[in-house]
Amino acid sequence: MTSGDILHMRRAIALAARGLGGTSPNPVVGCVVLDSSGEIAGEGFHAYAGGPHAEVVALREAGGRARGGTAYVTLEPCDHTGRTGPCTAALLEAGVARVVVAVSDPNPKAAGGAATLRRHGVVVDEGVLTAEAEEVNAAWLTFVRAGRPYVTWKFAATVDGRSAAEDGTSQWITSPEARADVHLLRAASDAVVAGIGTVLADDPRLTARVPTPSRAAPVLRVVVDPGARTPATARVLDDEAPTLVAVAEDAAVPAHLSRHAVRLPRVPGGIDLHALLAELHGRQVVSVMVEGGPTLAGAFLREGLVDRVVGYLAPALLGAGPAALGAAGVSTITGIHRLEFAEATPVGPDLKLVLRPKSPVSPEPTLSPEPTVPPRSSGRTSPKES
Amino acid sequence: MTSGDILHMRRAIALAARGLGGTSPNPVVGCVVLDSSGEIAGEGFHAYAGGPHAEVVALREAGGRARGGTAYVTLEPCDHTGRTGPCTAALLEAGVARVVVAVSDPNPKAAGGAATLRRHGVVVDEGVLTAEAEEVNAAWLTFVRAGRPYVTWKFAATVDGRSAAEDGTSQWITSPEARADVHLLRAASDAVVAGIGTVLADDPRLTARVPTPSRAAPVLRVVVDPGARTPATARVLDDEAPTLVAVAEDAAVPAHLSRHAVRLPRVPGGIDLHALLAELHGRQVVSVMVEGGPTLAGAFLREGLVDRVVGYLAPALLGAGPAALGAAGVSTITGIHRLEFAEATPVGPDLKLVLRPKSPVSPEPTLSPEPTVPPRSSGRTSPKES
Repeated sequence: MTSGDILHMRRAIALAARGLGGTSPNPVVGCVVLDSSGEIAGEGFHAYAGGPHAEVVALREAGGRARGGTAYVTLEPCDHTGRTGPCTAALLEAGVARVVVAVSDPNPKAAGGAATLRRHGVVVDEGVLTAEAEEVNAAWLTFVRAGRPYVTWKFAATVDGRSAAEDGTSQWITSPEARADVHLLRAASDAVVAGIGTVLADDPRLTARVPTPSRAAPVLRVVVDPGARTPATARVLDDEAPTLVAVAEDAAVPAHLSRHAVRLPRVPGGIDLHALLAELHGRQVVSVMVEGGPTLAGAFLREGLVDRVVGYLAPALLGAGPAALGAAGVSTITGIHRLEFAEATPVGPDLKLVLRPKSPVSPEPTLSPEPTVPPRSSGRTSPKES
Repeated sequence: MTSGDILHMRRAIALAARGLGGTSPNPVVGCVVLDSSGEIAGEGFHAYAGGPHAEVVALREAGGRARGGTAYVTLEPCDHTGRTGPCTAALLEAGVARVVVAVSDPNPKAAGGAATLRRHGVVVDEGVLTAEAEEVNAAWLTFVRAGRPYVTWKFAATVDGRSAAEDGTSQWITSPEARADVHLLRAASDAVVAGIGTVLADDPRLTARVPTPSRAAPVLRVVVDPGARTPATARVLDDEAPTLVAVAEDAAVPAHLSRHAVRLPRVPGGIDLHALLAELHGRQVVSVMVEGGPTLAGAFLREGLVDRVVGYLAPALLGAGPAALGAAGVSTITGIHRLEFAEATPVGPDLKLVLRPKSPVSPEPTLSPEPTVPPRSSGRTSPKES
């Protein structure tokens, strides 16, 4: 792996990111093609499902210059014929001599591209900037590997964690800039999920009021509504976007919900969220944003179903009022949900925080007790030391 | 004002900051002296009360080179003889031709320095980098202008604003790095204030366990204890630092508290915090840090007595448990305590937030309703426009 490899793969990842929000249920992919002298001859990214793959776009731009050259691809080139032909064939036909891959394809249907290329004499180098390339494709990789959509929990609160004042009033805790950013987040999701409590209290539209990327369908709206209580007049049932109302299997569904309702197993406190995500996975929903309220967010967290937290903190204090997060299955401090800050950036006067679960590879390395206190049980210390 | 003026004053402010935590009840002051050709000849800062003033330190280093030169001072040179002689005399004696001042001295006892210098033919330029120089001296300026100590409320919490789990356990939500930073904050304060609830629940020491700057006395510990319930065995009563127990005027004070107790007016919910701060002001306490718990913090906030908020947010979620901030006099959203983020920096795995009240000059410029809604009442719009 050379510094040139890293440079070109980083560019390919940046290209891939431009497809975010448009490619579901496909991954985002970026590609950079060099000619045989190492000059950039073509660039491309996958922009929408059914559209040309990144490799095809880049090869088209490179034309004859691709012969004897190198292709940097963020994801292993596909080897199967779906809505488009296999990328391996396109790379072979163009005469590319070397292919550099960041992430191997976890999708059994599409995998095998590297092997096919090698069989035809192409040099294939894998594992360049894998972590960065996995991050840009986190939603799709979760969709494929875990068999469920990637879940983002979004909240807006004061610095002391309140989402409304004591009397329930909350307009507006965060700034217009923060609310605009939320619309971008929604537009980059395949579905937005809210609980019936939020629907009854706030009557939200749950639409992305920004120009959406070239996605096939508008963002799906999902209401978690065990008792099928969503009123016929709810804005979430308007015609701006499709809406799914997830009701408990034994609920009496009123006529106005019949075309929206999907029945799911009941569990204590609501419906089975694993079943909800399986249902959404079946509908090719790659990423969902959980928007409220505190009860639903707590349930997703308790079930270990939150892959990312995006919080907008207003520089304000309330001291009373509803909390942004409700019961999340933690009764004592050892049960605390530990995450990592991935981002802390100003958005207008507010602060946008992005958190992700700690990598399972190194569990809680910073949660150590005070330096002077030895760890309670550690296989690495001898009895004498502890 | 030249770019050189700004450069040298910025250096003087940086020098002043080195005195923070050591100079109470004096301000922090920095000074840079240039010779007549504009070369830096001397630098100095005020390090501890009773020690030489910044101007004297810088002039001493400059020696004869100060003649015909320029002195940059963050605060107007004093004109009175306190524990040290007046700085105006030192500047005149050294033959400095020009003095540049950032902040005029608000202390009537010490003011008049600029006028004295001018009377003796020295060119005095005022108002260079005033805002920056006021910020480094915020505590002392509040002490002099408002007649009370500068109040910092410090808290540590999860991203959802919890300071402990549902069962009260809380060790450790934030990291060793964050806790070390708290000790630095304490060391830079003249007093640390806690409520009786925190003393009874956590039995904290409230000492700054880091080498303190060259301060005259250790950090004063203050317990807000209306009912005089601090037990004789409380760590806060040990000999590591002096302790004041603020009790209500009508409280029965047990013998073990007699040498610590100060009686203050009772108000609904506790003791009069304005009276407490006046008492501390009388004891030359320039800055206090309110450390806990949520009830006391809420009371300080409700009374408009918080000048700075320092929060340590752990990348973690609890969903239940005691909140970091208790009732703060807000029942509906229009009463929200609005502040501004001044800082958001990583400390270990945690995030340190610094907030300050919004400048009273431009009240709530970002709290506007949605862009499409005109302001409710504005003298600048004609009736037609509103």
